Order: sequence, then structure tokens, then C-alpha cells
Amino acid sequence: MVAEKCGKHSFRFSSPPVITTWACIGGAKEFEGPLGYCLDGITKGANSSKLTWEEKEQQLQKETLEKLAQKAGCTVHDFELVLSGDLLNQCISSSFALRNSSIAHLGLYGACSTMAESMLIGSILASGGCFDNVVAMTSSCFPSAEKQYRFPLGYGGQRTPTAQWTVTGSGAVRISRSGCGPLITSATVGSIVDLGICDANNMGAAMAPAALSTITSHFLDTGSSPDDYDLIVTGDLGQVGKELLAILAQKQGIKLGGKLIDCGTMIFDPLLQDVHAGGSGCGCSAVVMCGYFLEKLLRKKYKRILFCGTGALLSPITIQQGLSIPGICHAVSIEGGK
Amino acid sequence: MVAEKCGKHSFRFSSPPVITTWACIGGAKEFEGPLGYCLDGITKGANSSKLTWEEKEQQLQKETLEKLAQKAGCTVHDFELVLSGDLLNQCISSSFALRNSSIAHLGLYGACSTMAESMLIGSILASGGCFDNVVAMTSSCFPSAEKQYRFPLGYGGQRTPTAQWTVTGSGAVRISRSGCGPLITSATVGSIVDLGICDANNMGAAMAPAALSTITSHFLDTGSSPDDYDLIVTGDLGQVGKELLAILAQKQGIKLGGKLIDCGTMIFDPLLQDVHAGGSGCGCSAVVMCGYFLEKLLRKKYKRILFCGTGALLSPITIQQGLSIPGICHAVSIEGGK
Repeated sequence: MVAEKCGKHSFRFSSPPVITTWACIGGAKEFEGPLGYCLDGITKGANSSKLTWEEKEQQLQKETLEKLAQKAGCTVHDFELVLSGDLLNQCISSSFALRNSSIAHLGLYGACSTMAESMLIGSILASGGCFDNVVAMTSSCFPSAEKQYRFPLGYGGQRTPTAQWTVTGSGAVRISRSGCGPLITSATVGSIVDLGICDANNMGAAMAPAALSTITSHFLDTGSSPDDYDLIVTGDLGQVGKELLAILAQKQGIKLGGKLIDCGTMIFDPLLQDVHAGGSGCGCSAVVMCGYFLEKLLRKKYKRILFCGTGALLSPITIQQGLSIPGICHAVSIEGGK
Repeated sequence: MVAEKCGKHSFRFSSPPVITTWACIGGAKEFEGPLGYCLDGITKGANSSKLTWEEKEQQLQKETLEKLAQKAGCTVHDFELVLSGDLLNQCISSSFALRNSSIAHLGLYGACSTMAESMLIGSILASGGCFDNVVAMTSSCFPSAEKQYRFPLGYGGQRTPTAQWTVTGSGAVRISRSGCGPLITSATVGSIVDLGICDANNMGAAMAPAALSTITSHFLDTGSSPDDYDLIVTGDLGQVGKELLAILAQKQGIKLGGKLIDCGTMIFDPLLQDVHAGGSGCGCSAVVMCGYFLEKLLRKKYKRILFCGTGALLSPITIQQGLSIPGICHAVSIEGGK
């Protein structure tokens, strides 16, 4: 066995797998944001007039994987397995990016929780001995997501104050059984929570109860508390969802204190970038994790963070049918490590 | 470590996890087919005029999970983790089926390879000690899939001879670290192969090269050959894809002999049920595996089979954009076991 089950939904690694390399690529808006300096690059594909929006997102994943290989001192073909998923129907950004690459692939769908989900599964595959190294990756792209989930940009629809702005970005980590880098020490798999929010422009409200459920489970299962973490990093509830989570936690007597931070509130400048409730999309937490937090963990700026990837499991069909939005959250505990 | 890496894409379990329980529910057409007698039941949801097609598919997964619990002598809430995915955009059948169930959930997307993918990941999670028992589940539903991928049934479009019929069905297995039942001994994760097929009504042709790639990798990586298996069970290439796979294998000098069998060619009667090239959909291989093969393995009718789940990773958008269809195949070796 490589992990010890804790409580109902969590497990702790006997020998924690290591995040040895990470990379992230963003779009122009993300590059202009407060974390622009953390990006490994700006997507070239986004400037090509020959590509569809969907192809641009595929390109984004390809560029991120190439950057990861470059940083790891290898080629893309040295990666053994890629765990990835995205927001587009049938996860086409992920599958088309890996066409004919001969890299083994496992497709995931967890909406904006996909980065945490892929890291969680990837860490078990790596530490279990199935593969020597595993890449966990995801992406999102503003125009392709808007077209699919809400309305095409050309329609010129107005955004509501609770709406979040889908990040154009992709992040990837390489996880190995050994090596140098931040460690994944424990994880909590979330269950699906739906309190009846039906507004597709208020995903923060739909996801906040799921985030609370998983954070509560994590503390209960592992016998830990917010005191054991430098930060509890949700990604991405946005400003509205983050505030709701804080209120819900307080009501349940969980003191998150000043430790709660959300990737969706970090990636854009709320005053200068007109993103309403903040950033969202699989790429948001992926970019913030791979660009910002992993570097900080490596440099021992943080000792331990709880990365809580949150996803709104809606589809345009369920919204059109008037159904509410199920939310999910997966948590991964990451330590500064070796 | 719980598994030993073999070659590039495969691993072998040190202590093979056990499929302790399985269940499957189908629709009326599946019940009338040659394997109708293997089903654990016919979906009740399908007869409800109050449900949308999408809700009927959610109901199908709920009924299957309840049947699995009943066969396992527990309640649905005793399941610790469900790994599931389906064909609908954003995998809504899977996520809506588990809303507010408090069961941990990891969402997957592998198109029709999802049953094999969920068994592969589930077996690592169970044997790795993360959870005591893991459920791998998937579903598909004819009207919801046709509406999304091709045309609504009311349109009355004609089907081409190479088209497959999406199975209305769901299958689930419970995987544990120990117990009685068939064993998952090794697995091969597929890579994405795309040889340029653009016809969304010929998915067998799109998936056959991926099936060959994974089967070849499996034999090479694990040092095995078709002689080591009673059957090589693909799911679901249909008649066209199965024939193409046999031709491709022969060209590469791989003698599959009479061992190749495809779930899509088994579930319907080709003469009486007018399904053209056979069955397809995540539910097809799930129902055939859970209804037919696992029982045969338990009763030692078969000693060892290689279950090769095949998926066509198309989306309606990629088809409308004229893009070709990437295929993937994941293989799981299952033995008669304890």
C-alpha cells in the first residue's frame, strides 16, 4: 500500500510523491494581470488568425507541455502519462493536444476542479509504481468557453456582477515517486453538493458549499485544522464564492481566519481588468498553482498549503432545462518538501 | 509500491485488486437482445414520461448503483468512492446521479473507453490503500446521445451502414483490495491515435487503430501474447471496427486468431434488431462486461481475458469543423481469480 485511508474521503501518502517540475502559459490578459510575472510564457497560438478558438486552446496545452519538458530537461516524448481534462464538450482540448503523441493519456472531467483532480490521481499513479513520472495538466480559454457555456463573444451580451471571467491559460506539473520539489502529502476526494443555485453566471455560489464540504472533510478525516496550513487555496470561487465560503465556514464554527485565498481573486486586477467576480476556468487554478504557489513552496515561503480545486458541474443543457448546478471540490495538501 | 511498471504504457499489480461485485441495468431493446438474460434489470426511468432523456440516463446510473449495493449486501451510502463518466457534455449523467449522495466522486472522460478507464484507475486507488472499496461506473442512453452527437430522433434521419447504435445501459463494478471475485492483474493505458477518419458515423474505423496500438503495447510491455488470453474483448468497435482491427493486426503480424470478440457485436441481434454495425456507447462495454464476462470469469468459464475499452474522442464541434476523430483504448487484464 502506498497510502493510508483517513476517515471517509481522505488518504495520506506513506511516501509522498514529488512535484518535480511545473509550467504554465497564459493569454495576453493574464500576462497583464498581477501574476503575469509568474507565467512561463504567453501563448503563441492565441495570435494566430488561422486557428479556431478550440484549436487555440489545444495549442495552449501543447505549448505548456513543451515548456514543461524544457524545464524538466527532457522532450515531450519522455513523459510517460498525461492526466488531463478541460471545459470543452468531450474534453477536446486535451485529446486533440495529445493526438498521435504516443504519450499514454487518461481523460478527466472535473470542470474547474480538474487541476486538483489530476494531481490527486497522478500522485497515486506515480507513488503506486505504475509510472515513473506522470503529468497532470489542464487548460481553459475565454472565447471557447464563453461560446459554449453562455453566448458567443460577438453577441456582445452584458455580464452580470457575479459572473467570472474564464482564464485563458494552461498549467502542468510533473509528479514523480522521488526527486526534489514540493510534496503531495495527503488528499481528500470531494462529493457532489448541490444547494439549488440555478444561475450559470454565479458559479461561485454554486461551488462554495462543495468547497466547505471538502475542507471540513479534510480536517475531520486527517485530524488537522486551518492552523496546520499556511494557506487554504481555493480555485476558483471568485470574490462572491470566496465570501460565501467564509460565511458558511463561520456558521459551522470553522475558523479559516485570514488563511483563505482564492485563485480566481488573484489572477486579474479587479479594478483595472473588468472581470467582475474574478477569474475562473480549469486554467485559472492551474496557472496560479503552477506559476505562483509551487515556486513559493519550493522557496519555503510557505510550508504547507491545502489546494482545493472547485468545479461547477453544469452543462448548457442542464441550465436550459432549469436545473441547478452541482458543485465539487477536491483537496490536495502540498508541502514545501525537499 | 503496489504495481510494477512494464514497458512504456503498462503495469502489473503486485497484489491484484478484486472485482467483488458487479451490476448492470439496460433498456428495453438491450433486454430483447441476445444478452438480455444477463442484465440485472431493465431501467424503470426509461418508462417515465416525466423525465427528460438526460434525466433518464441519470436515473439509469442511480438504478445501477442501487442494484450494485443490493448485490453487495450494503447500501449505496456504504460505497466510498465512485469513478464515473459518460458521453453527455460535461458528463452530466454521472454528476447529477451522485448529487448530494455524500459519496466521493472522481469524474472521467474517455468516451466509450470509460468503463475500462474507470476500472484501471479504480484498481490502483483500491490496491494503493486510498479507499477500501471503489466503484467504477458508466452509462450511455440512445436518445440523449443521438440528440447530442448526430440528430434528434424526431428528425427521422437515416443511419449509414457503418453507424453503431448507442446502448441504453449502465454497468458498475466494486473493486476492493481483497475478497472473492475476478482479479485485475495488469493494465495498459492507451495513447491517442488519429489516422484521419472524419465520418462521425464510422467510429469503428476511427477507433480500430487505437485498439491495435494498445493491444500491441500490452503484449510488448508485459511479455504476453494472444496465447495467454482466452479472449481479447474490445468494447466497442462494432462489426466494421472489429473487422478493421483484425486486418490491421494481421498486417502487423499479430495473430489474434479467433480470440477477438467485440462487445458491440454481442449486445444486439444483427438480423432482428436493425443496429447496422452494432452497439456502442459507454454503456455497451459496461453492460457486456458486468452482465456477461465477469460472471463467466467467476465461474471459470474463462481463465483470463484482456478487456480493451475503446473510445472515439470526437465532439459535435470537431465534426462540424471537419476535423478527424481521435481514438483511444485502455486495456485491463482480468483473471478468473479467487
